[in-house]
Amino acid sequence: MTRDNAPTGLFTRSAQVDVWQVNAVKPVSYEIRMCEDAFDPADEALLEPASVTGGDRRRFVVIDAHVERLHGERIRAYLDHHRVDYRMHVVEVDETLKELATLEDIVRALDAFSIDRRREPLIAIGGGVLMDIVGLVASLYRRGTPVVRVPTTLIGLVDAGVGVKTGVNFNGHKNRLGTYFPASLTLLDRSFLATVDRRHISNGLAEVLKMALIKDARLFDLLESHGPALIENRLQGSRWGTGRAACEVVQRAIHGMLEELQPNLWETQLERVVDYGHTFSPTIEMHALPALLHGEAVCVDMALTTVMAARRGMVSAADRDRILAVMDALELPTWNDLLEPGLLARALADTVRHRDGRQRLPLPVGIGDAAFVNDVTPAELAAAIDDLRTLGTAGRRGAVLEEAA
Amino acid sequence: MTRDNAPTGLFTRSAQVDVWQVNAVKPVSYEIRMCEDAFDPADEALLEPASVTGGDRRRFVVIDAHVERLHGERIRAYLDHHRVDYRMHVVEVDETLKELATLEDIVRALDAFSIDRRREPLIAIGGGVLMDIVGLVASLYRRGTPVVRVPTTLIGLVDAGVGVKTGVNFNGHKNRLGTYFPASLTLLDRSFLATVDRRHISNGLAEVLKMALIKDARLFDLLESHGPALIENRLQGSRWGTGRAACEVVQRAIHGMLEELQPNLWETQLERVVDYGHTFSPTIEMHALPALLHGEAVCVDMALTTVMAARRGMVSAADRDRILAVMDALELPTWNDLLEPGLLARALADTVRHRDGRQRLPLPVGIGDAAFVNDVTPAELAAAIDDLRTLGTAGRRGAVLEEAA
Ligand SMILES: NC(=O)c1ccc[n+]([C@@H]2O[C@H](COP(=O)([O-])OP(=O)(O)OC[C@H]3O[C@@H](n4cnc5c(N)ncnc54)[C@H](O)[C@@H]3O)[C@@H](O)[C@H]2O)c1
Ligand SMILES: NC(=O)c1ccc[n+]([C@@H]2O[C@H](COP(=O)([O-])OP(=O)(O)OC[C@H]3O[C@@H](n4cnc5c(N)ncnc54)[C@H](O)[C@@H]3O)[C@@H](O)[C@H]2O)c1
Repeated sequence: MTRDNAPTGLFTRSAQVDVWQVNAVKPVSYEIRMCEDAFDPADEALLEPASVTGGDRRRFVVIDAHVERLHGERIRAYLDHHRVDYRMHVVEVDETLKELATLEDIVRALDAFSIDRRREPLIAIGGGVLMDIVGLVASLYRRGTPVVRVPTTLIGLVDAGVGVKTGVNFNGHKNRLGTYFPASLTLLDRSFLATVDRRHISNGLAEVLKMALIKDARLFDLLESHGPALIENRLQGSRWGTGRAACEVVQRAIHGMLEELQPNLWETQLERVVDYGHTFSPTIEMHALPALLHGEAVCVDMALTTVMAARRGMVSAADRDRILAVMDALELPTWNDLLEPGLLARALADTVRHRDGRQRLPLPVGIGDAAFVNDVTPAELAAAIDDLRTLGTAGRRGAVLEEAA
Repeated sequence: MTRDNAPTGLFTRSAQVDVWQVNAVKPVSYEIRMCEDAFDPADEALLEPASVTGGDRRRFVVIDAHVERLHGERIRAYLDHHRVDYRMHVVEVDETLKELATLEDIVRALDAFSIDRRREPLIAIGGGVLMDIVGLVASLYRRGTPVVRVPTTLIGLVDAGVGVKTGVNFNGHKNRLGTYFPASLTLLDRSFLATVDRRHISNGLAEVLKMALIKDARLFDLLESHGPALIENRLQGSRWGTGRAACEVVQRAIHGMLEELQPNLWETQLERVVDYGHTFSPTIEMHALPALLHGEAVCVDMALTTVMAARRGMVSAADRDRILAVMDALELPTWNDLLEPGLLARALADTVRHRDGRQRLPLPVGIGDAAFVNDVTPAELAAAIDDLRTLGTAGRRGAVLEEAA
């Protein structure tokens, strides 16, 4: 007895030799919502889908230890209010703990709590590190368990929380092990940023600046005009009042990111403008660990590649200086002593292996556009480093040191 | 500046609140080929894709230690003949080593060798355990690296090597962590079975018997007529001569498996006839570890559920006895002392969590068809165990003991 093929796909078996070709398409759909307060008891979005059986809902919540200390009380109040049977698994995370051992601890706790794989999504509350680890847990646990995410840092809101990439560091390599796995729902709640420290706000603004440089001149203008105030206010305030610029900045960054991600979720297209700032930074970040944050390493990469673009005439000297000045104003580094030709050449070689044998290096074109190049030489890298050594150390860094003194 | 959406998908942003819906489809395509000798120097299938740059090809080969001892020489000769720059990473594997630590060792060796992620697929040569681990490595390494598989056991040829599931055991649970990740190419080379021991041939025949019971009466007849000879000859012989039955058995098993898998690659449809024999067996297998092999545990599950189906009148007493007799003839266990109502109830509960709150238990209908039930009670389990205690221990097991004496 042979069943009919379902209409969703086909496979063919050759008559000569035995060859089967399996073809299928996997539909993927996920939602991202901005909200004023994800833990407002009146808002049940976090607990979707509602319990089908009518019984109490069960949820396994993984939360960043810092976030738990600062916001745990209202989160517990919310879950209690909705009579959720939950386990709050608190994880100490930072970039050095973004590793398999942390993932294993979470899985053991999840096993002990035991959830209904399809109806009781995990809930992840924290920064980019927590999102990436829990995303990987979700994609691996029983080969896929839904997860709802509430990013709590700016990097989380505009970057880690809107894409589908998960991962942990391994063997000294950034995100060496990971998957593409969309969260079923992500709630973007700007109010968490109120407790994020200055440096991590700046860190997130580096990814916003990336979007501005490669595709959104208006976003660059916003950062140039409001940068210091955004940091000072932690992007707080209502969208119709003091938070207007903050709101527009966050929205434009997310919208731009999704425009780039959506047609290329699995990165089959290797020329990605959103890779801007991410060519040398993975190596820089891992070498500097824990001295440089992700966005800071990205900013050093962007400073270097801005200078490279200027040397190629793709960015004018005036725009180059504007860009470096905005980096300074956003309290981001434009120089790091790790910048030396040998390390950068190795970083580029590693990226080339990741991008199918070509550099595919995005460079800014003016402010708000980008192009890809494949012909960067060690000599060009060395020259750009020399330029940046002068330009990148001249600005705000000096001022910050003065302030500190 | 805003780029246009690429035509491959859409996302909408609501005008009221900020809500983005990301929709995309991931096309998946993979190939499975039967071949006489995957390591015939005249056959370059294993080394697809050919080197694009024209330089030497580099391949990272992961191979089961037993297979390396038995077949390593001709595999090296093949790779040398084609001037492949390769690293042969030999792994001791068995079910107890199907764990993250083994995966980590492979990743470290892979890092040390360093491959071009898109053009230099991993090559995996071994049984189901090795396929599953290397499949997981491939799906996680840089978020996805292609892999070519050469399964070397019968379980590998008819089951682990044709699907897309990868995984490792964790925290005492079978395949607790894993992904769905298709190998780009799988070469099925029956000649490897020549060195597989009797018990592992039987073990693979359990999965073949599963296909027979749920959907292929002709396959059951083949097993009934040729079972002992298939084991004796390790399914060898040319397709036009002594290997005719072996060839038809392997082909039908693979074809049936692909018919079931292809429309449901990601198991979104939870009623899967191929889950037959896999309701109680994961728990039995992990508890009995290392006493029972995967297919043996599956056979114990099938023996039990055949008896359950007979009690329900879905299988006649005559067919039930035929089925148990074939299990005996295939040298597979039809009883295990772990069968007791408490453990089976827990196993069923675990499976229910995996199958979205319902049992969705496939049971045979006669020989060659199946149906799903959702109303199995502890009392029914206990009664089926009692029946099987008598029926399942009466047959070949006694005969085997006599032979051994
Ligand atoms: N998956 C992706 O697409 C993607 C994109 C960008 C970045 N990332 C990853 O994200 C990570 C960086 O994320 P990150 O910058 O959020 O780092 P992080 O997660 O380490 O968070 C930064 C710090 O802020 C704390 N914190 C989090 N929320 C807080 C809050 N509301 N108030 C006070 N403190 C809070 C954290 O405990 C941590 O100490 C990197 O590992 C990077 O690789 C992933
Ligand atoms: N991914 C899937 O869809 C899927 C399907 C079925 C089974 N599996 C998994 O497969 C595993 C069982 O596979 P298996 O039965 O192949 O076990 P296995 O990989 O442990 O191989 C069995 C034994 O045979 C040895 N061996 C392998 N090839 C040989 C050869 N040609 N000659 C001599 N010895 C050889 C191995 O070293 C091992 O000792 C289980 O972990 C099971 O979960 C996965």
